[in-house]
Amino acid sequence: MATQGQVITCKAAVAWEANKPLVIEDVQVAPPQAGEVRVKILFTALCHTDAYTWSGKDPEGLFPCILGHEAAGVVESVGEGVTEVQPGDHVIPCYQAECRECKFCKSGKTNLCGKVRAATGVGVMMNDRKSRFSVNGKPIYHFMGTSTFSQYTVVHDVSVAKINPQAPLEKVCLLGCGVPTGLGAVWNTAKVEEGSIVAVFGLGTVGLAVAEGAKTAGASRIIGIDIDSKKYDVAKNFGVTEFINPKDHDKPIQQVIVDQTDGGVDYSFECIGNVSVMRAALECCHKGWGTSVIVGVAASGQEISTRPFQLVTGRVWKGTAFGGFKSRSQVPWLVEKYMNKEIKVDEYITHSLTLPEINKAFDLMHEGGCLRCVLSVHE
Amino acid sequence: MATQGQVITCKAAVAWEANKPLVIEDVQVAPPQAGEVRVKILFTALCHTDAYTWSGKDPEGLFPCILGHEAAGVVESVGEGVTEVQPGDHVIPCYQAECRECKFCKSGKTNLCGKVRAATGVGVMMNDRKSRFSVNGKPIYHFMGTSTFSQYTVVHDVSVAKINPQAPLEKVCLLGCGVPTGLGAVWNTAKVEEGSIVAVFGLGTVGLAVAEGAKTAGASRIIGIDIDSKKYDVAKNFGVTEFINPKDHDKPIQQVIVDQTDGGVDYSFECIGNVSVMRAALECCHKGWGTSVIVGVAASGQEISTRPFQLVTGRVWKGTAFGGFKSRSQVPWLVEKYMNKEIKVDEYITHSLTLPEINKAFDLMHEGGCLRCVLSVHE
Repeated sequence: MATQGQVITCKAAVAWEANKPLVIEDVQVAPPQAGEVRVKILFTALCHTDAYTWSGKDPEGLFPCILGHEAAGVVESVGEGVTEVQPGDHVIPCYQAECRECKFCKSGKTNLCGKVRAATGVGVMMNDRKSRFSVNGKPIYHFMGTSTFSQYTVVHDVSVAKINPQAPLEKVCLLGCGVPTGLGAVWNTAKVEEGSIVAVFGLGTVGLAVAEGAKTAGASRIIGIDIDSKKYDVAKNFGVTEFINPKDHDKPIQQVIVDQTDGGVDYSFECIGNVSVMRAALECCHKGWGTSVIVGVAASGQEISTRPFQLVTGRVWKGTAFGGFKSRSQVPWLVEKYMNKEIKVDEYITHSLTLPEINKAFDLMHEGGCLRCVLSVHE
Repeated sequence: MATQGQVITCKAAVAWEANKPLVIEDVQVAPPQAGEVRVKILFTALCHTDAYTWSGKDPEGLFPCILGHEAAGVVESVGEGVTEVQPGDHVIPCYQAECRECKFCKSGKTNLCGKVRAATGVGVMMNDRKSRFSVNGKPIYHFMGTSTFSQYTVVHDVSVAKINPQAPLEKVCLLGCGVPTGLGAVWNTAKVEEGSIVAVFGLGTVGLAVAEGAKTAGASRIIGIDIDSKKYDVAKNFGVTEFINPKDHDKPIQQVIVDQTDGGVDYSFECIGNVSVMRAALECCHKGWGTSVIVGVAASGQEISTRPFQLVTGRVWKGTAFGGFKSRSQVPWLVEKYMNKEIKVDEYITHSLTLPEINKAFDLMHEGGCLRCVLSVHE
């Protein structure tokens, strides 16, 4: 391509400061260095982790930065030594890398590849510990190794999944974060069995994906819990069979659930990021075997607690990141499952906007009716 | 036997009040009712749970009571409908029942049988919700469904394991609690694999049994942690390969362990009952897969806490009761393993006394050199 090896100037939404509206800027995107891939982002969705860092509550958040981590695009060019993708490949950037070489990847026990984390955690690239983004010479930090609120981004080659070129990018961009997180929490982390009773706390995108995962796993009852009763109608389409609004009860929600399930649920999932709810999710589990999975991300510094007796009497407390999916290996597989109509994606998209409308999109996230808002990045 | 169907008057150590010396009394032990077994206790050991309830810190502790739950004896007589044991059988009373009929027993997922808990939890027998013990007509509560600090006790038939009559009762009485708890935490709850790195917090009987279990499971490193460095010498005999005294370090113990293990251990076990140590045990686990098992029993009202990030990044927090062993089915199997010299028992017995010396035995428990003190009950 004509742009190969050149700096590309394009539009990106820059977060100059915490909690200030993003600004669409002309950003210079440097060419990919060794082991890097420059991607033309076509569609990006917004996720609560973007909003969390943008809010300034994330002590590891660095500004100015380009947020965004749930997206899809096309490879524009690749740096030296990159063999697994080439210009023109359709890809999904993956905030959770997969190098297939590190202790984590080789363990067979986790998806938490550690290869590039030291760089992505501080907003730079591994090769020279610098950013590929700048505005008038001023460096702009990367975010989660993806920075998809930009028409072009640079990612590590271990952080990009090559997908079926037939897949509609405006849909499958969602397979970069929320939907896999929910499905994988059920399939990989909890390993829900047929006939199980499942509780899902929080019926946003991740919670609905948990419900969908539980349904495909054959759960007999899927209890949705949310403080917004209006969510039940939509949730039914994703497999939720019963609904409880904690506000309708005087008793603690864990007690309400225990009472309604003859001792508790087999599996519970916290999809909010609220440490009090995490406790309730554990304590609504059945004695002897109930397993609770933390999926939501709590604010920094907050802690979970419970009586140790809860664990000594057989409950298990776990967590999940990206649903335990190995990103480069399994995101393409999820895309295929979508193409085969085995998993939903379209149904999570409630709004479609363009990149310049990104601040409106952030506002939408806080409205009950919004699941995912997808931005067309080049319109 | 001549005593069958009769009240037996015998010696027992009665805890009249919390934290007051036990008193050897002439106790009347009523005959077993339907589904009950009267056992002549020959040997009993002391465990920290006895001391905890005796101290008065256990809000569920009832006085006056007869403590004791790690013992062995011979069936004296059985009540109506009891078919699985008969007079003369050698048995180990089991504070964790196994009925093979309840939801828990049938689940295949837990050893926490619920059949008689409603009675044993409040110091009585299921049949008439009354005690079988009295002193001059005053009822004395049962404890943990076992009450082994008595020459005779009455237990539910689901709470008694029939064992090989060749087994030395003065040894295998230990298979009623501490040793199985440690072994089972490793074998059943954590399922430690060959080559694993293991941390054991607290090198009392349970901690040493964890070390032994880890050794037989093929762990490559077994790190013992205790604030008494003198324990390392004994611990080596049970498989501990390295020792850390937290008092020798300025850094938090979890950080010391993470530093010494290239990121953390594969499995950790808390065998003390200290909620701060439970947190350290979780946080010294390796990101991505480390599993921490709570074995110790914390004082009532205390809580464990951690950052949810610890779980979201792949650590698992569990607990165990009686090591996950199904009592009636597996205690006899443990006795066989002892007879075949596959597990240690003798090595945990550091002191032997008689029932009248029981208060001295409680004092010994708080001395570093004491693992298990076995009381001969009829001397």
